[in-house]
Amino acid sequence: MVKANVKYTGGMQFVASSDSGHAVVMDAGPEVGGSNTGSRPMELLLMGIGGCSGMDIISILKKKKQNVTGLEANVTGTMSDDYPQKYTEITIEYIVRGRGVTEEAVKRAVQLSMDKYCSVKATLKGAAQIRFSYRIVED
Amino acid sequence: MVKANVKYTGGMQFVASSDSGHAVVMDAGPEVGGSNTGSRPMELLLMGIGGCSGMDIISILKKKKQNVTGLEANVTGTMSDDYPQKYTEITIEYIVRGRGVTEEAVKRAVQLSMDKYCSVKATLKGAAQIRFSYRIVED
Repeated sequence: MVKANVKYTGGMQFVASSDSGHAVVMDAGPEVGGSNTGSRPMELLLMGIGGCSGMDIISILKKKKQNVTGLEANVTGTMSDDYPQKYTEITIEYIVRGRGVTEEAVKRAVQLSMDKYCSVKATLKGAAQIRFSYRIVED
Repeated sequence: MVKANVKYTGGMQFVASSDSGHAVVMDAGPEVGGSNTGSRPMELLLMGIGGCSGMDIISILKKKKQNVTGLEANVTGTMSDDYPQKYTEITIEYIVRGRGVTEEAVKRAVQLSMDKYCSVKATLKGAAQIRFSYRIVED
């Protein structure tokens, strides 16, 4: 059971806190009456899928004794035009930096996260097609 | 098109930033090698649905000239046991505080958000059953 409390703090700002003890500020943009003091709620979904799969990929590459020096995910979400608008497609580009990191290890790590471990991906794929790619950069 | 960049910052910590210009720290708990310096990725989904629908509800109640003094959402997510684990059920309890706020207005606002406006809800309902309730507290 995962829990979050989300509290209205004025304007269009909300502060969320969760069982792990951390708070996240959300706000709308000025175009819809907000003051842009925090992330948009829809942005949190993309951050979540990047973080969730990133943790898997790092764990797996470490177990495979790969010398990883950096990992980055660029996540893009495309929304439907019709209401209720939702993500119909999410694209993730992973950039793995390291020394002698093998393509096989990265391919396997990304695949395992996408197919088996990443709970955010497993949840979002109910609505959106999720595509991913990776690049390896020698450090 | 919504975008986020998620960067590995050591241990199991990731820092996400998005087009709106805000950053969110994510981390795993110590039980899986993290240091709990930030939210769990799966928590962000619950925060997102609370913030997204909260913004709708506040906007609609303001348009209906309701004297709202506070709004809170308690969000709970139940995950599947099987891998890939995902949310199968999300429950949201809204607590609306105000002076003379009518049940009809709150019911309508919540319903409109759930059925028509909240993009996070529309995305997550692909995987999870989403249940909600509300309470009105006279302030």
